[in-house]
Amino acid sequence: MNIAVLGTGVVGQVLASALAAKGHAVMMGTRDVQQALAREQKATGAQLTLAEWHRQNPQVGLGTFAEAAAFGEVVVNATSGFGALPALEAAGEANLDGKILIDVSNPLDFSRGMPPTLFVANTDSLGEQIQRRFPGSKVVKTLNTVNAYLMVNPRQLAGGDHTLFVSGDDAQAKATVAGYLRDWFGWEDVIDLGDITTARGTEMLLPIWVRLWGALQTPVFNFKVVRQAAGQ
Amino acid sequence: MNIAVLGTGVVGQVLASALAAKGHAVMMGTRDVQQALAREQKATGAQLTLAEWHRQNPQVGLGTFAEAAAFGEVVVNATSGFGALPALEAAGEANLDGKILIDVSNPLDFSRGMPPTLFVANTDSLGEQIQRRFPGSKVVKTLNTVNAYLMVNPRQLAGGDHTLFVSGDDAQAKATVAGYLRDWFGWEDVIDLGDITTARGTEMLLPIWVRLWGALQTPVFNFKVVRQAAGQ
Repeated sequence: MNIAVLGTGVVGQVLASALAAKGHAVMMGTRDVQQALAREQKATGAQLTLAEWHRQNPQVGLGTFAEAAAFGEVVVNATSGFGALPALEAAGEANLDGKILIDVSNPLDFSRGMPPTLFVANTDSLGEQIQRRFPGSKVVKTLNTVNAYLMVNPRQLAGGDHTLFVSGDDAQAKATVAGYLRDWFGWEDVIDLGDITTARGTEMLLPIWVRLWGALQTPVFNFKVVRQAAGQ
Repeated sequence: MNIAVLGTGVVGQVLASALAAKGHAVMMGTRDVQQALAREQKATGAQLTLAEWHRQNPQVGLGTFAEAAAFGEVVVNATSGFGALPALEAAGEANLDGKILIDVSNPLDFSRGMPPTLFVANTDSLGEQIQRRFPGSKVVKTLNTVNAYLMVNPRQLAGGDHTLFVSGDDAQAKATVAGYLRDWFGWEDVIDLGDITTARGTEMLLPIWVRLWGALQTPVFNFKVVRQAAGQ
């Protein structure tokens, strides 16, 4: 499948590598390709500059947000929270229309220092903002509650016995994405929380996520929703 | 031990019963005892009116907020979110001073309908508001992420293999409360998230908690924080 990954940070890099390794045709989108490749600074959490990473992952295409979105049958938004709507604007409504848009971003605001706060929360969410701005796309919020390396390899932790969530207005799109999550990465326990307003709940997990990272001294953890088996 | 439980709703009732069953001397606090006993309406989620409940639990004392707080060596705040600061004001700073104050409340606001929003979140929390208002108390936020019946009986679900959190500024008080949680109810996995500002994280779990209740069709679930064993 042709897949667009918007954003060249560590989340975009890890997702693009993993999807390409599964045999998908992947194009990464960025604002300005030459500028991105010339950047000498590594993205937060990344091991390599984008140019170094791209030399190691030559099978991943690199284009503008619009080129990548036009290329993808499915579009994955892996930008920062503040970068999400500008990147999708640049991608262009026509290139997103009718497509599943997997939103992995979180509305983290580091401007007050650590720990970050959320720039939208409680009565709205970034997932909802994206769905409202692009009503022709099928926004599915997911993967935003785990570290990038865990997104693509849940089995590295407790054999994959932990939980992921999907939020979105289109039931069919959510079911399709749950299938992708299983086939692409091996996610077995994916809970459909409901419509896109339930993205508030997963984005509002970030404050405890950040503090757990501090308390546990590792980002390799996840929530498992422990519940009674049906009928109990 | 003498324990005060502020609030006569379902959380207060379930906690008071369970603590009394463990052999503790428990006094429940309310605004006006006669008025509370005369109430013909059951508390949200409760099976019985308070008078009926009290006839079944005669060993639990019933007093004003101030009488209960004066009685308790430890004070448990089990009021609604909006009720927390008024109840603690009525309890009186002198009756709370120097004591561990276990805050179980959540800042849920149902005034916009379902699902509820939070009346404080993101840059502050109810736990912090309480600690700021009562600087002489040792506020420990905990138990606010699970259903009342699960609070007092974690083993009813997956043998107790799921997680609780404590937040607070006093490390000794948090360790003491973690011991209470184990001894009183059987909680084995209690994570110390850090200072009282980490209560933002557990209070902000409520939006996903409410949606999981809807998705799973049961309130008997909890989060387990799955992580790598130390040294891995």
